[in-house]
Amino acid sequence: MKKLFKPNLYVALVHYPVINKSGNIIASAVTNLDLHDMARAAKTYGVKQLYVVTPLEDQKELTQKIISHWTSGTGSTFNPKRREALELITISGSIQDVIQEIRSAENSYPKTVVTSAKDSPGSTSFAEFHELLEDSNPYLLIFGTGWGLAEELIVQSDYLLEPVKGNTDYNHLSVRSACSIILDRIIRG
Amino acid sequence: MKKLFKPNLYVALVHYPVINKSGNIIASAVTNLDLHDMARAAKTYGVKQLYVVTPLEDQKELTQKIISHWTSGTGSTFNPKRREALELITISGSIQDVIQEIRSAENSYPKTVVTSAKDSPGSTSFAEFHELLEDSNPYLLIFGTGWGLAEELIVQSDYLLEPVKGNTDYNHLSVRSACSIILDRIIRG
Repeated sequence: MKKLFKPNLYVALVHYPVINKSGNIIASAVTNLDLHDMARAAKTYGVKQLYVVTPLEDQKELTQKIISHWTSGTGSTFNPKRREALELITISGSIQDVIQEIRSAENSYPKTVVTSAKDSPGSTSFAEFHELLEDSNPYLLIFGTGWGLAEELIVQSDYLLEPVKGNTDYNHLSVRSACSIILDRIIRG
Repeated sequence: MKKLFKPNLYVALVHYPVINKSGNIIASAVTNLDLHDMARAAKTYGVKQLYVVTPLEDQKELTQKIISHWTSGTGSTFNPKRREALELITISGSIQDVIQEIRSAENSYPKTVVTSAKDSPGSTSFAEFHELLEDSNPYLLIFGTGWGLAEELIVQSDYLLEPVKGNTDYNHLSVRSACSIILDRIIRG
């Protein structure tokens, strides 16, 4: 493990636009454990911000309540390590807003990297993404909830990351597991 | 990725004896998403069985209800891929029972490998565990819920696996994330 490898990496978890089982575009509900697991993994691998993307006001409010419980509520003194992780979360209305926020912080637009469980020609390997992260430019790694990111997000992205594969033909990891494994693979190289 | 690497690997998720925040031994509650995420990761990496260990009758019943919903209830037709994963789960009352079950199935006692978030002298590296898995003997990889496995389980085990580390000093992954990353590391080698 390269202790000093500190890539300029942001992560987004998208709840809209994603697809459902039938392939229709939906806004999915925010899942409590997605926030905890992905924030803890992001903190472990030096991710600068974890954006939770939803345009729905009630979902933004729910997300903010969960974050506040752990960052300023009773959870913050009960479990300070959880606070450190959840402090990485920013709620955002769209991927476009996330990109503009990173642009403001970095003075440069991030390169976007979408994830998918499906094989696609021309996808970027984990090793290639690791190499890309060696420059200082910001990268935004994007995960979808539900049955995955809508096609419009995939075609607009700069890179499409190869899917995680194990030693079987089964490729139905949770987004929490996939995010953890992908961060481990791209940071370790 | 070695497609044909098929280790003789079992996984257990222990709810007793584990420790709480204060270091006391407790029986933790079964968490729905632990079952889903760990079963899906286990299926992805060719694990033979995922044992959910709890001595509490109500927790066993709850676990069985969740499994049945996805393996024979409405969930099984709604999402057959989820069924394939949850079919890997067996509920067991203790690690001793798990070891005996594997003994019956394999005609040989499994070597036990416990996990911990803490550094320990003499721990087994991921690469070393990968090499061990190249023989045909059964191995049982054991994860703790709560604040981790009780000391009595750790001292009785054959191996203690090194902790997962990222590129920061933060080492507070969820058991779901840790299990996913550890399976990826030991199966890929």
